[in-house]
Amino acid sequence: MHGLRCIGCGEAYPVQEMPTGCPRCADIGTPASVEATFRELPTSLLSASSGYKFGAWLPYTHGLTLNEGNTPCLDLPRLAAEVGIRQLTAKHEGMNPTGSHKDRMSAQGISRALDIGARTIVLASSGNAAVSAAAYCAVAGLRCEVATYGHMPEPYARALHRFGTKRVTFKRSLDRWSYVRQQVEREGAFALTNYCVPAVGSPVFGVEGYRAVALELAADGCLPDHILVPTSRGDLLWGLYSGLRDLLAAGLIPHMPRLWAIEPFPRLSRVLAGASLQAEFEGQTAQFSIAGSTVTLQQKLAVEMSGGGAVATSDAEATRGAVQLAGQGLWVELCAGACLAALRSLCDRGQILPSEHALLLLTAKGDRDTFDVAC
Amino acid sequence: MHGLRCIGCGEAYPVQEMPTGCPRCADIGTPASVEATFRELPTSLLSASSGYKFGAWLPYTHGLTLNEGNTPCLDLPRLAAEVGIRQLTAKHEGMNPTGSHKDRMSAQGISRALDIGARTIVLASSGNAAVSAAAYCAVAGLRCEVATYGHMPEPYARALHRFGTKRVTFKRSLDRWSYVRQQVEREGAFALTNYCVPAVGSPVFGVEGYRAVALELAADGCLPDHILVPTSRGDLLWGLYSGLRDLLAAGLIPHMPRLWAIEPFPRLSRVLAGASLQAEFEGQTAQFSIAGSTVTLQQKLAVEMSGGGAVATSDAEATRGAVQLAGQGLWVELCAGACLAALRSLCDRGQILPSEHALLLLTAKGDRDTFDVAC
Repeated sequence: MHGLRCIGCGEAYPVQEMPTGCPRCADIGTPASVEATFRELPTSLLSASSGYKFGAWLPYTHGLTLNEGNTPCLDLPRLAAEVGIRQLTAKHEGMNPTGSHKDRMSAQGISRALDIGARTIVLASSGNAAVSAAAYCAVAGLRCEVATYGHMPEPYARALHRFGTKRVTFKRSLDRWSYVRQQVEREGAFALTNYCVPAVGSPVFGVEGYRAVALELAADGCLPDHILVPTSRGDLLWGLYSGLRDLLAAGLIPHMPRLWAIEPFPRLSRVLAGASLQAEFEGQTAQFSIAGSTVTLQQKLAVEMSGGGAVATSDAEATRGAVQLAGQGLWVELCAGACLAALRSLCDRGQILPSEHALLLLTAKGDRDTFDVAC
Repeated sequence: MHGLRCIGCGEAYPVQEMPTGCPRCADIGTPASVEATFRELPTSLLSASSGYKFGAWLPYTHGLTLNEGNTPCLDLPRLAAEVGIRQLTAKHEGMNPTGSHKDRMSAQGISRALDIGARTIVLASSGNAAVSAAAYCAVAGLRCEVATYGHMPEPYARALHRFGTKRVTFKRSLDRWSYVRQQVEREGAFALTNYCVPAVGSPVFGVEGYRAVALELAADGCLPDHILVPTSRGDLLWGLYSGLRDLLAAGLIPHMPRLWAIEPFPRLSRVLAGASLQAEFEGQTAQFSIAGSTVTLQQKLAVEMSGGGAVATSDAEATRGAVQLAGQGLWVELCAGACLAALRSLCDRGQILPSEHALLLLTAKGDRDTFDVAC
């Protein structure tokens, strides 16, 4: 790793904490996150002999791990035939150590926190990121503070208690962010997630952890035409995009899959149709992992530069999707069910063709998500 | 695969369903399970080019899969130092697709059911096996009936509902088995778990799926001196033993680890001290995944032939173990916490030495286990 670079204006910075993103872009009212730059990336996907599997492609080549990642790709031929596409694959992030893709962010982000001598991690989370950070902080011996909601589903609350995590509850999403900001600015805590309004996304070291999703797809020889990603602030989407972009540049994949942000109500969809990226987009949803009212530059760039887009999916459609995935033996959180619903929409609209291959990124397992009780 | 063989008397049988084990041993009142025999086992652990990773070592080389297995080994140096042994490793079976080791049994067992044209799977389970079978039946398109308890923790019940599983509840463990027997004998259902009294363990094709645990350890170069396994009827213990035994015979591992059955109250412990294998051993426990009043020949042979034994661990000790594992970032079911408590007992008794390497088989993740509410 060589330095940092703003994903918006391209300004280069030395390696440092930049939890609020690029100061130049923030000053002109268009906040943007920064990404890692590498002096030279490997020209192959050979596993590292020790440490993180694809360490040389990530900021930390060795670091804290609970054996996250390396989630398998599962072919769903029956569902592909039913939807009417050539091939359908699921990458089940619920098979990560704490049950969601967030473990990839925790491993890199908390490795960074250890590296710079941080003592306390602070984050805002509705559940998956909280449990993940709590687990990694436990093994790292760091204090963990989670700003969350009062009505957090009980399995998450129980896990946080078990990991010895401090939980502070708020009614509004933005109040959680104020708390995170306060802990960072007054107490010197290390922020694992976004706390800016307008939002920029989570701090760089965590987001970079999602690059491994792209690396694993390439190593598994699974290169779909389309990837559907449940999205809130777009951390996963950007990490996936940046990994694919670098694999393409290295000649290790022949084309860039189109990335689709799956959202519970129109946010990015409205931005792509002309609304301001810095606007607030209010909406209610049971898809709590991807709730929230803000859009980030990183998610907009990831879908635009890959030739994808955004699809809003209602809770009812997401529920039907989750039920259909259960019919394939996959028990996932509600917003992962939304992926399947969004796939059908994209096929209906002709944006995914019968000759193509789509991949659903199933962000977390379903055990902790109580949505079906209401169905 | 060549045929079947009684693990007790050694009698050979052709490949067939033998859910009640060896008829000769049953006739003389000492029920015994049967195991698969192979014409010739591979002499290496090279992965198959397709299908199941170690297919050639298992009854089904290709078959139904949700990408179970290949769970990682995680080193726990801090805990090793605290316990006072050279090396401590956890193999986290909670990272399987439905969150427990049972997925290994479901994949092989339900592949067999499909192969012989069964339409309905029936099993007795307190939770993990039920959710696993339900998921695999969903993707296989088979009907699934689960005989279970009325007070099943809600996350399990919710998952069964989601997978469209028929749930029949009973108060007593043995009544569940009567129901399974009835469905097998009257309705022609395929039994995935034991229904005999005295118990023999689950039918052979499912148990063989656990051999992959041994194969993965060898492939990962992780060969501990001791393996601690939460145990009810000993399916996992036997599969692990048979895999290790064959690896040793093939010269692929240099020694046999000692296998330890971890139980919630003395059952096998009493049998090893002279009680009848066919006796009933009553006891209450919150470690519901390893509850039950019976002992099987397979678990007795696995610990005896490997030079291990049995350790009874109270719920309070298991809870302390689970809390200490959470301190390593591992959030596991209560009986997996018992492994760590049992490790301390074995060290105290001098049965595990400071110079040795022990492995904890963490059978399932903790999200669905509500025990900590009471703590």
